[in-house]
Amino acid sequence: MTSFGIHQIGVVKIEKEACYIEISQLYTTGLRHIEQFSHIYVLWWISMRDNPLDRSQMLATPPKLKTSIETGVFSSRSPTRPNPIGLTKVKLLRVENNKLYIDRIDAIDGTPVLDIKPYLPGDSVSVDEIKLPEWFDHLKEE
Amino acid sequence: MTSFGIHQIGVVKIEKEACYIEISQLYTTGLRHIEQFSHIYVLWWISMRDNPLDRSQMLATPPKLKTSIETGVFSSRSPTRPNPIGLTKVKLLRVENNKLYIDRIDAIDGTPVLDIKPYLPGDSVSVDEIKLPEWFDHLKEE
Repeated sequence: MTSFGIHQIGVVKIEKEACYIEISQLYTTGLRHIEQFSHIYVLWWISMRDNPLDRSQMLATPPKLKTSIETGVFSSRSPTRPNPIGLTKVKLLRVENNKLYIDRIDAIDGTPVLDIKPYLPGDSVSVDEIKLPEWFDHLKEE
Repeated sequence: MTSFGIHQIGVVKIEKEACYIEISQLYTTGLRHIEQFSHIYVLWWISMRDNPLDRSQMLATPPKLKTSIETGVFSSRSPTRPNPIGLTKVKLLRVENNKLYIDRIDAIDGTPVLDIKPYLPGDSVSVDEIKLPEWFDHLKEE
């Protein structure tokens, strides 16, 4: 099995009135122009599921469902997966030095951040074009 | 610096008439129900940039631009970045056993695949809402 090494570039901070990504000093130059984007992707490490048992599970129950259907982990955004990399599209509210203030994130305070990418028009799919299994249909109304 | 280990779960295959993701036998159970999604995210390892020099660059020229502006790597989808994880939203055309046929991908034949995630309505941002630096404006017309 081929393996690769990744390292933390920042951290998720959840405070009472705000949440933000704090990028480590070593990487702050990499933020140049980031404030000009309205949306970004945050790639983060799902530390709580970084263990041999969770990483070997192939089936999971997708989060936020009313049923308990078991799907493949690759058909789910479940935090249980072979490589516990979280992916969240967020709205970038403002930037203060090495802090990216965002609207929300489904990660807990202290979560390691792996990468930030700008959200580009090509990432968008019109909601009418998106097909989902029927147990996901309620997400269309959210 | 905190580091984490990730491993390959499949491979990108580019053939003359088709491109697909081939998931390793160990992980095929994780594909259950995937054929019910129209779009997926592919997370892949940018092997060609997995070297100390590329991984320490903090500035890059975004791909597909007519100018040569230098932005931070986190403001760019450049393959040069501290953690060379590629992210591509693709259209899922059909599934045959452990092969996911897709419309296109910006990775070369043989590229290691790290994760597959379903594209959900919450990943979509209306093109009118997306703000970009002016040198990215041409992407809106693509």
